[in-house]
Amino acid sequence: MSVPTIEPGAKKPVPEEPPDAGERHRLTAVTGLAALSLDAMASVAYGPEAIVLVLAAAGAHGLGFTLPVTLAIAALLAVLVASYRQVIAAFPDGGGSYAVAKAHLGRRTSLVAAGSLVLDYVLNVAVAVTAGVAALTSAFPALYGQRLWLCLAVLVVITAVNLRGIVESARVFLVPTAVFVASILALIAVGLFRSAPVSTAAADGHASVLADDATTVGALLLLKAFASGCSALTGVEAIANAVPSFRSPRARRAQHAEVALGAVLGVMLVGLSVLISRFHLQPVEGVTVLAQLADASLGHNAAFYVVQFATMILLALSANTSFGGLPVLLKLLARDHYLPHVFALKADRQVHRHGVLALAAVSAALLVFSGGDTNTLVPLFAIGVFVGFTLAQAGMVVHWCRERGARWRARTALNGTGALLTGVSAVVVTATKFQDGAWLVVIALPVLVLAFEAVRRAYARIGERLGVGRLPDPPHRDRSLVIVPVAGLSRLTGEALNAAASLGDEVRAVTVCFPDAEDRAQTHALERSWAEWNPGVALISLPSAHRSLGRPVAEYVRAAAEPGTRVTVLIPEVEPERLWQRLLQNQRGAVVAHAVRRETGAVICRLRVRPA
Amino acid sequence: MSVPTIEPGAKKPVPEEPPDAGERHRLTAVTGLAALSLDAMASVAYGPEAIVLVLAAAGAHGLGFTLPVTLAIAALLAVLVASYRQVIAAFPDGGGSYAVAKAHLGRRTSLVAAGSLVLDYVLNVAVAVTAGVAALTSAFPALYGQRLWLCLAVLVVITAVNLRGIVESARVFLVPTAVFVASILALIAVGLFRSAPVSTAAADGHASVLADDATTVGALLLLKAFASGCSALTGVEAIANAVPSFRSPRARRAQHAEVALGAVLGVMLVGLSVLISRFHLQPVEGVTVLAQLADASLGHNAAFYVVQFATMILLALSANTSFGGLPVLLKLLARDHYLPHVFALKADRQVHRHGVLALAAVSAALLVFSGGDTNTLVPLFAIGVFVGFTLAQAGMVVHWCRERGARWRARTALNGTGALLTGVSAVVVTATKFQDGAWLVVIALPVLVLAFEAVRRAYARIGERLGVGRLPDPPHRDRSLVIVPVAGLSRLTGEALNAAASLGDEVRAVTVCFPDAEDRAQTHALERSWAEWNPGVALISLPSAHRSLGRPVAEYVRAAAEPGTRVTVLIPEVEPERLWQRLLQNQRGAVVAHAVRRETGAVICRLRVRPA
Repeated sequence: MSVPTIEPGAKKPVPEEPPDAGERHRLTAVTGLAALSLDAMASVAYGPEAIVLVLAAAGAHGLGFTLPVTLAIAALLAVLVASYRQVIAAFPDGGGSYAVAKAHLGRRTSLVAAGSLVLDYVLNVAVAVTAGVAALTSAFPALYGQRLWLCLAVLVVITAVNLRGIVESARVFLVPTAVFVASILALIAVGLFRSAPVSTAAADGHASVLADDATTVGALLLLKAFASGCSALTGVEAIANAVPSFRSPRARRAQHAEVALGAVLGVMLVGLSVLISRFHLQPVEGVTVLAQLADASLGHNAAFYVVQFATMILLALSANTSFGGLPVLLKLLARDHYLPHVFALKADRQVHRHGVLALAAVSAALLVFSGGDTNTLVPLFAIGVFVGFTLAQAGMVVHWCRERGARWRARTALNGTGALLTGVSAVVVTATKFQDGAWLVVIALPVLVLAFEAVRRAYARIGERLGVGRLPDPPHRDRSLVIVPVAGLSRLTGEALNAAASLGDEVRAVTVCFPDAEDRAQTHALERSWAEWNPGVALISLPSAHRSLGRPVAEYVRAAAEPGTRVTVLIPEVEPERLWQRLLQNQRGAVVAHAVRRETGAVICRLRVRPA
Repeated sequence: MSVPTIEPGAKKPVPEEPPDAGERHRLTAVTGLAALSLDAMASVAYGPEAIVLVLAAAGAHGLGFTLPVTLAIAALLAVLVASYRQVIAAFPDGGGSYAVAKAHLGRRTSLVAAGSLVLDYVLNVAVAVTAGVAALTSAFPALYGQRLWLCLAVLVVITAVNLRGIVESARVFLVPTAVFVASILALIAVGLFRSAPVSTAAADGHASVLADDATTVGALLLLKAFASGCSALTGVEAIANAVPSFRSPRARRAQHAEVALGAVLGVMLVGLSVLISRFHLQPVEGVTVLAQLADASLGHNAAFYVVQFATMILLALSANTSFGGLPVLLKLLARDHYLPHVFALKADRQVHRHGVLALAAVSAALLVFSGGDTNTLVPLFAIGVFVGFTLAQAGMVVHWCRERGARWRARTALNGTGALLTGVSAVVVTATKFQDGAWLVVIALPVLVLAFEAVRRAYARIGERLGVGRLPDPPHRDRSLVIVPVAGLSRLTGEALNAAASLGDEVRAVTVCFPDAEDRAQTHALERSWAEWNPGVALISLPSAHRSLGRPVAEYVRAAAEPGTRVTVLIPEVEPERLWQRLLQNQRGAVVAHAVRRETGAVICRLRVRPA
């Protein structure tokens, strides 16, 4: 997942870091690796499994191709890392497919990149949560039946944490990432010294999903395996997005982190697939491949549970990064007027809730759609990731061709290869997984882009009409007439007339009078006590034939609005002491305000008076 | 069901009828019978069935008691009709248990009556809808499996119709009621000439719910049957509630209608139960007793379907009456400050939606709770109805004892008997059906009453604090300082300063400035163009360390509020042209308004400017 933030889950995008924040807050190669590699590392929990599941369709014979496919993916990883080193050098202010595409591929394309990023953020939550729960249910098979509920519970927790707002720091992520990587590497190391599984306890009694041996393993199947496995590459771009949050020399440190990430990730992927082949591991239902590997090489003991828990924690954290990253992306898009400005609103925490809640809702829908099964979601995930990769690489190709700096041909070739490979993978995974849900992405992506542009157009039109940028006419003072709707006599009325007297050159009170006998009686009573009070303000009663409260006031306001007169409607309301007392408010004020706003151009003042 | 309205489903309660409406709009004995007897007539669709189902627990031997039990109910009906004739005479302005109890039994008791009425309205919807669908599924057994969905669909339709607002007229109800009554009477007449069922096609192949013969049929069983069957009496009070909507002589016409209602209802009930005994009819699952009777006496032909459709239509209409009646009752309660005043808000239709939607939601919950089965709901229904009956009768007893008019002893005895019988029935049905859901009513009723009183207390406290009734101090004029938060320069800003200049003796513009570099740049740009525009209003930039938008403004307002100065915050906002464009509004205005309202006593003006 690309997380254009200082730290994963951070609420502030890079440009907003206060200038006084200083270098010491920034990332070294190591802390950067910990903070930003989370998603990439976590993806080894579902990447290899995705390969094995596809190949299992061709039986044990097919599983034999696990290692070759993984090596191909590792090669692609190498290309990606190399070309992201170049992205880092070329975009020291933070690259990411959106930035690169915006710079070199034009507006429309950059929107496609943005759309795919949005989809990635959402899918990352769903994939990470389901994979995390799968790690848990592999350790405790009894929970397998409840996995959807577990997923939703985890989602609720993450959402709640993000709504409260969490203080993030790279250090938080250092430990779990380290534990996870260490345990995986240990798993691999130990496994390499074994000729046969030390235990198969986890998988025992679970139905194998292995098909009968196929006579031939088709190229299409291998492509599918490759495409699904590439989901293990998600997150390698995160570092490139966050260059500015490294200590200077930023680019150099970021490049080191990127290379380290690629190396560790590659070792883990290849190592795991070697073990898969060596232990002739077969995918079973309800136990992840990673769990079987831990079982096989470490044995069904404490170590096994350590791996499972480390995996679950890391996946939960990686889901959490979306909650940090998506609001930031939405903010960037809102600044460019592609999304409602509310996402770019600089204000108290509360405002991020829009983004967090939206993300939670869509993720929940995806979890239900997938029934809590990771492997339903992984292909969808891969599509968006590849679209992003492809656009970033393509953008770099344009970049080099324009710049024609040193060794530009080699660099162009490198990024071009990356673009080609990821582009092909994108097409393959979309085509092969179309019925299995890929259609969802194929529909969602264009819809998102069209929505972005519709919003942009609407803002442009409104801005034009408002004459944004042009200097408005100098202000002039009009005679001020303040109209106060009243229904009875109380301190509320008194306060309202005080305010009106201060605001207006002339003040008039109006009361709406309904035809029914008892209402007319009420009005007469009000008129009597008004005369007794004698505030020096005329009380005009407006007859309402059609039992409408707002329209008579609106009509009176329209009639009173002569040129040179600024009409203001001042509506007094009780400010409830406690929240539930809001229910007690008669909505007269709201009804009148609504009608006046709809039918006149008058200023609407609402005066809240506390009963105390 | 008691429907204190001109016509069932009418949106206007009696006292609100415009005086000019004239006599011709009012009801004769016949149209009144049609308009107000709907619920009572419809209840024969589930009343007899309720009896049979209880007696079936004692086998065929038990079913033998159907006629005696029905005769007892008919006797109670006679007493009720007679005593409601007296209610009509005593409360020519419309009685109903709420009015009677309020007049003679004190506040608290009248609230119990009101609560039971509310429950009735809600349960009436659920019972009528389920019974209507049962009539349909009896004709088309294939639909029986989907009955819950059918119920919800019918509810949705009724709700939609009531949300759109329907033009009601007694005539609308004349035809279906007539058709229904005629077909039932025909069914009975024909049936009486038959010695054996002409057809049992409808019931064939359905599981009988008849138990083995019990040696003895206990008194408790008979009481239960009686209590359940009394649900057939629901609605006999409707006419007494609506006396003012009859043509004069109102009381006399209403009394005639009441007696006619009693006669027709009694004939139908007794006639049906005679047929039940004669045909040795057994309750089966999935086919209503009424459907079996139609089958038995008219044969499984067109006539059978006519009866079923007439029943379904009438039940749907009787469900609809709740949507007309409940909002009116809520309005009466709100006027007495027992419910939020919004229910009494005299304004355009829209306001009724509160009541309609609430009713629909609760009814839907009941439908799901009952799984779409009428007989689960009938006992709950009966409780509320009996509580209402009992209170009305008891109130009349007090009435006569106080008045001591002609033949007051006889009248007291009559109403007393009614109160006793209905009171006993209420206790019996509650006790016997407690586990089957009656507990719901036993909890809901007191909760409602307590809620009514809590609301009343809250209003009293607020009114006291606001000095409602007392004359407020005479208004005085303060110096007016208007503060305008601005974020940029556009026609919006111009309009805002125009309004501010008209409203204030002094105007100040403020802009919130965030620490980030790019934000500072924006602020400087704004300050430059402000100087260029030179509107004669100072622009004060408020630094915001904690990226809060509202607090700096609120703090500035608090600081500026000296005694003798009325501070007004004028917030300019764009009025979106289309609804979806509301999404485009940056919520800056809302955020600032919220903070200022929470932290200061300033007047908040929101100026909507149309972009066009």
